[in-house]
Parts: sequence; C-alpha cells; structure tokens
Amino acid sequence: MFTIRPIAPGDLSLICQHRDAMFREAGRAHSDLAAMAAPFRRWLEPRLADGRYFGFITEQGDQPIGGIGLMAINWPPHPAHPMDDRRGYVLNLFVEPTYRGRGVARGLMDRAEHLFAELGLRYVILHATELGRPLYEQSGWLRTTEMAKSLPLLLGAVSTPDGQSQ
Amino acid sequence: MFTIRPIAPGDLSLICQHRDAMFREAGRAHSDLAAMAAPFRRWLEPRLADGRYFGFITEQGDQPIGGIGLMAINWPPHPAHPMDDRRGYVLNLFVEPTYRGRGVARGLMDRAEHLFAELGLRYVILHATELGRPLYEQSGWLRTTEMAKSLPLLLGAVSTPDGQSQ
Repeated sequence: MFTIRPIAPGDLSLICQHRDAMFREAGRAHSDLAAMAAPFRRWLEPRLADGRYFGFITEQGDQPIGGIGLMAINWPPHPAHPMDDRRGYVLNLFVEPTYRGRGVARGLMDRAEHLFAELGLRYVILHATELGRPLYEQSGWLRTTEMAKSLPLLLGAVSTPDGQSQ
Repeated sequence: MFTIRPIAPGDLSLICQHRDAMFREAGRAHSDLAAMAAPFRRWLEPRLADGRYFGFITEQGDQPIGGIGLMAINWPPHPAHPMDDRRGYVLNLFVEPTYRGRGVARGLMDRAEHLFAELGLRYVILHATELGRPLYEQSGWLRTTEMAKSLPLLLGAVSTPDGQSQ
C-alpha cells in the first residue's frame, strides 16, 4: 500500500537524489550532473523552505519510493492562459526502479494536476524523458513548439559560477 | 538601410502590437488574444521599465519594422546549464509583413544571441511559430521535449482574473 504526502523541507536531499537519478537514467553526462549537484541544492533549499517548490512524495510504510516537484512559474499572459501570468511546472518526477509499473508515477501526476487546478492554474508544462513520455501522452499532454540552443562561452562574459541570480 | 536599437519603456504599445500580430498570424483564437491584451500589457509595463524585459527594435529611418523580446528567467540548475540558475528566453519576435525576406528577423536573433552570450547565459529557449521555425533551425536551434496540458477550470479554484501573481 502506497501513501502520498506533501513534500517538506526535510526532503531536500531526497529531491536532489531524485533529480540526479532521473537525469542519469535519461543519459545525461556524469560531468554535467556532478557540476549541477551543489548549485541545484543551493537553488532548491530556500524554495523548498518557503513553498515556491512544492510537490509530493510517495511512501511505502515510511520509505520514500518516488516523488514529484511542482512550481507556479511567472510567465507572460499567453493565448493558452490569457488572464493569468503563471504556468504550472512539473519537474523531478522519479520512481524507484523496483516500484515501477504499479501506478506510482500516475498517482503523483494525478495529485499534481489536481493541485494545480485547485490553485487556478490553467496551463501546465514539463520536460519529458523518454521514460516518462508514454505516461504523459496517455494523460493528455501534448508536445509544444519549444526550441533551445546552447551558446558558446564568451571570454569576459558575466558568469554566475555559484548558480546565483544576478 | 535598417538599424537596430535597444527596446525602451516607450515601446510598450509597440511590443503589445507585435505580440498580438504574431499570435494572430499563428492562428490563435481572437477571443484568447482579446482576453490576453490587457493582462499582457499590465505584465509587461513594470518589466519593461526595470529592464527584466529587454530586447531590440529594428527601424527603417524612424519607423519600427520589427522587434524581439528577451528575458533571463530563473530556472533550476540543469544539465544544459549546470552552474547557472538562468535560461535566456526569446519572445515576441515579429517583422512587419512587407519587410520580410530581407534578413530582419535573422538580424534580431543574431543580436539577441550575442547579448545573451555576453550576459553569460549558456542555454536559451523560445517557442516557435510555424513561420519562425525554419529560421531557428538554420541557426542551430533544436526541438526540446517540452509537453503541456490545459487543465479544466475548477469551481472554487483560486483565480487571478487580473493577471497578477499571488
């Protein structure tokens, strides 16, 4: 029997582990994940403490077996949410491998969508791994037109090596 | 001869017109664009004033013929930008129809990418219209795995009809 509880500040390390494991499974370079670890933790800690980063943990007994992170991010009012300057964002969805295929991810996504709807959010986004895509497609999620480009590092550019905003 | 200048607070109405025209051409519903107009303007005005929304306008003489909007948005450190909690975002790229095919959009994108690189941003995103996609593809932009879902309006949900954050 699985139970779902809200994320708490004490889940800081667990969420960092979920993010690392999710990206490792998706084939991201170990060097990038190693470089990301401390900046992500520093980024997450205050947001977890004040509730800007929220979400759920699934447990069996008192053992966490999966989790999902959520945010309401500021976004310009858009035809998909014309009167609201927020989008929901889903991140760091992870289920321990030995517990997969039993509806844990689906249960977390259902809770997430319900909470977003309760918060009045009309449009939610995520970035899918190959592993997650079928679940999202089954639940009515559609590909967007987002594109991205990695830029070259310019000598003399303003850098933020500690991951802090400027 | 075209010249490119930075966006200024006095471009508020021009940027709103560009956004509306861009989405109209992309086939968005008139009702959504009408609903978006005032909330977007309210969202933009303070960000244009304090520089969180920046970008460029292309002019022929003193006549604006196109523009591009840029932001550095806060984002969790990610394998694509492991030590930086920012992504560049490009929006509201628009060129007046009679001036198309003459490199105006390309010129604006080149300026945008150069400025982002100067700011130390390593990863930039945008949402492409059908019209814009070939230009981005030629410049090395790639599709991401972003997915989205529109949620039903829940009775009793916390709504933000005036487009303000909560």
